[in-house]
Amino acid sequence: MLEAYIKQIQPLNQTAMLKSREKWDNIAKPLRSLGRLEEMVIQLAGITGSADIEPRKKAVLIFCADNGVVDEGVTQSTNEITAAVTRNFTKGIASINSLSRECGADVFPVDIGIARDMDCAGLENRKIAYGTKNLAKEPAMTKEEAQKAIITGIELVREKKEAGYNLIITGEMGIGNTTTSSAVLSVLENLSPETVTGRGAGLASEGVQHKIEVIKNAIELHKPNPDDVLDVLSKLGGFDICGMAGAFLGGAIYHVPVLVDGFISAVAANCAVRLAPLSRDYLYASHCSAEPAGKLALDSIGLQAYLECGMCLGEGTGAVIGAKLFDFALAAYDEIASFKAASIEKYELLQ
Amino acid sequence: MLEAYIKQIQPLNQTAMLKSREKWDNIAKPLRSLGRLEEMVIQLAGITGSADIEPRKKAVLIFCADNGVVDEGVTQSTNEITAAVTRNFTKGIASINSLSRECGADVFPVDIGIARDMDCAGLENRKIAYGTKNLAKEPAMTKEEAQKAIITGIELVREKKEAGYNLIITGEMGIGNTTTSSAVLSVLENLSPETVTGRGAGLASEGVQHKIEVIKNAIELHKPNPDDVLDVLSKLGGFDICGMAGAFLGGAIYHVPVLVDGFISAVAANCAVRLAPLSRDYLYASHCSAEPAGKLALDSIGLQAYLECGMCLGEGTGAVIGAKLFDFALAAYDEIASFKAASIEKYELLQ
Repeated sequence: MLEAYIKQIQPLNQTAMLKSREKWDNIAKPLRSLGRLEEMVIQLAGITGSADIEPRKKAVLIFCADNGVVDEGVTQSTNEITAAVTRNFTKGIASINSLSRECGADVFPVDIGIARDMDCAGLENRKIAYGTKNLAKEPAMTKEEAQKAIITGIELVREKKEAGYNLIITGEMGIGNTTTSSAVLSVLENLSPETVTGRGAGLASEGVQHKIEVIKNAIELHKPNPDDVLDVLSKLGGFDICGMAGAFLGGAIYHVPVLVDGFISAVAANCAVRLAPLSRDYLYASHCSAEPAGKLALDSIGLQAYLECGMCLGEGTGAVIGAKLFDFALAAYDEIASFKAASIEKYELLQ
Repeated sequence: MLEAYIKQIQPLNQTAMLKSREKWDNIAKPLRSLGRLEEMVIQLAGITGSADIEPRKKAVLIFCADNGVVDEGVTQSTNEITAAVTRNFTKGIASINSLSRECGADVFPVDIGIARDMDCAGLENRKIAYGTKNLAKEPAMTKEEAQKAIITGIELVREKKEAGYNLIITGEMGIGNTTTSSAVLSVLENLSPETVTGRGAGLASEGVQHKIEVIKNAIELHKPNPDDVLDVLSKLGGFDICGMAGAFLGGAIYHVPVLVDGFISAVAANCAVRLAPLSRDYLYASHCSAEPAGKLALDSIGLQAYLECGMCLGEGTGAVIGAKLFDFALAAYDEIASFKAASIEKYELLQ
């Protein structure tokens, strides 16, 4: 079933990209001087199939889920925080709400696996299970659950597109999800748990050491196959990572650009690109997480962040700031005068 | 006279910074998880002397001036472009205008040394001279002119503060100004002209080689004293660089934060910090220019860019995008619920 979705992914539209390049080169400014903002728009043309780009209507999808591994004491908070912060998303008082208002983005929290019943207005209920199992003792989820969570992410992008959104911002909330992300990345990239594990939401050095041990032992216990993303995700992942990976695939399937947020989101993007290499071209990195492995996860799939803000909050907070760059790039693309209108001779592209 | 201005510069207000730190630590999110956005606001508290930070009203000061060295053929365009683009600033059709509208910033082009009479509504006339002299043959300006241009920048910040602006964005327009900036930086940082010279607005490799030769010869001819910023600026600089250096000093004198833009602006910031080391704490870098020496100029004064967009357009285009980060940071600072209001237990700061 997931394969049928993935088969629909097409390469970017080269004709539209060339037209967009031409349009930039006729805008009155030194050629290529807006750098990656120009490339951002050209990629948009490739994604949407047209060099005429509409303004972006932005949706933040926050995948909220609990992780059984929290029982191992790998976090500073208990998993009640997942539910509490998710509730705050619906009340508009969390970090992502304030930043999204500033960006002009709408926030959609999704319960993809919170450990309790939420019954909360404004929360989309797509619960796969009441949290994952404790990966220190058993696989976090079944392969079927992993697939279901990924397809949930794909379908959410389709629904948001149908509701008029044309820029998807990914975010997550789930106590324990830097542990699952480090575990998944360690296996996929063949990097030691030491290399890919950080402080998460404020562990002391001792706590980080314990977190590394838990990850090491879990990898030894489950022996996931690094060439089988679903195997890795089901044994070590979280529903949030699966859902976000699905959102990235959904962007590629439905021709909607999707922004990667921080570490957890970057690991999910890494998974998506392994499942469907073409999906890479529908993604945009946003910021470089303060979690040390965030950059590793992006580098390996050839994505480069725009923002260096040392953030590690999650929820989509870095991506929603990155989303504002689209407004700037499109303002430049649509509003700056052409060389003709500006009464300026066109620059030449010299090597 | 310049010394009297510089003497007024004070260190940041530590009490206000501590209060601001405390406020961040009571906001419901993992401690320090907004990283450099938190530091940005704490610095604002230090600059303004209060942990209660008003929204930023943003002014872009664009220093427009011609450079005599253009006679040496160091650019792709002729110096008519300086006047033409400056005119476009006043018409609202240049790159900086569209990006400033998106940011909510007002644009103030300043004629600080354009080579012709402008007579143009919406352009502030602070002309020091009709362009600089050709630095390949004689000093670009006198020391008195350099001082006057710097004081012009200082005074412009005072005037904008009196008009209600509390965030200054620096920009420039002046054909030939990557040549002057590379020359100044080469002397100040004791780096070879090869290291600090790039393509500017689109030179071919051959052109870059010629530009390097011109800079080399000028440094040999004038033998500027690297420990005397005014000597270096008057022999090799431009009125735009001087004016921007003044704006940075003005920020420190009048307690207004000032954003550094790209390469030329970073060289000006480097000059300002050499003239008055305390002024550094009133500055914010914005983006890392595609001109190779932009990062060098910032690194040496301990400033780090927030944006990696590969831009090299000038006019303040990178800084005005960076300015938007203040809106995001302040939205987070003022709107996210406290731990108490969010019904979440406070995180602990562990090492």
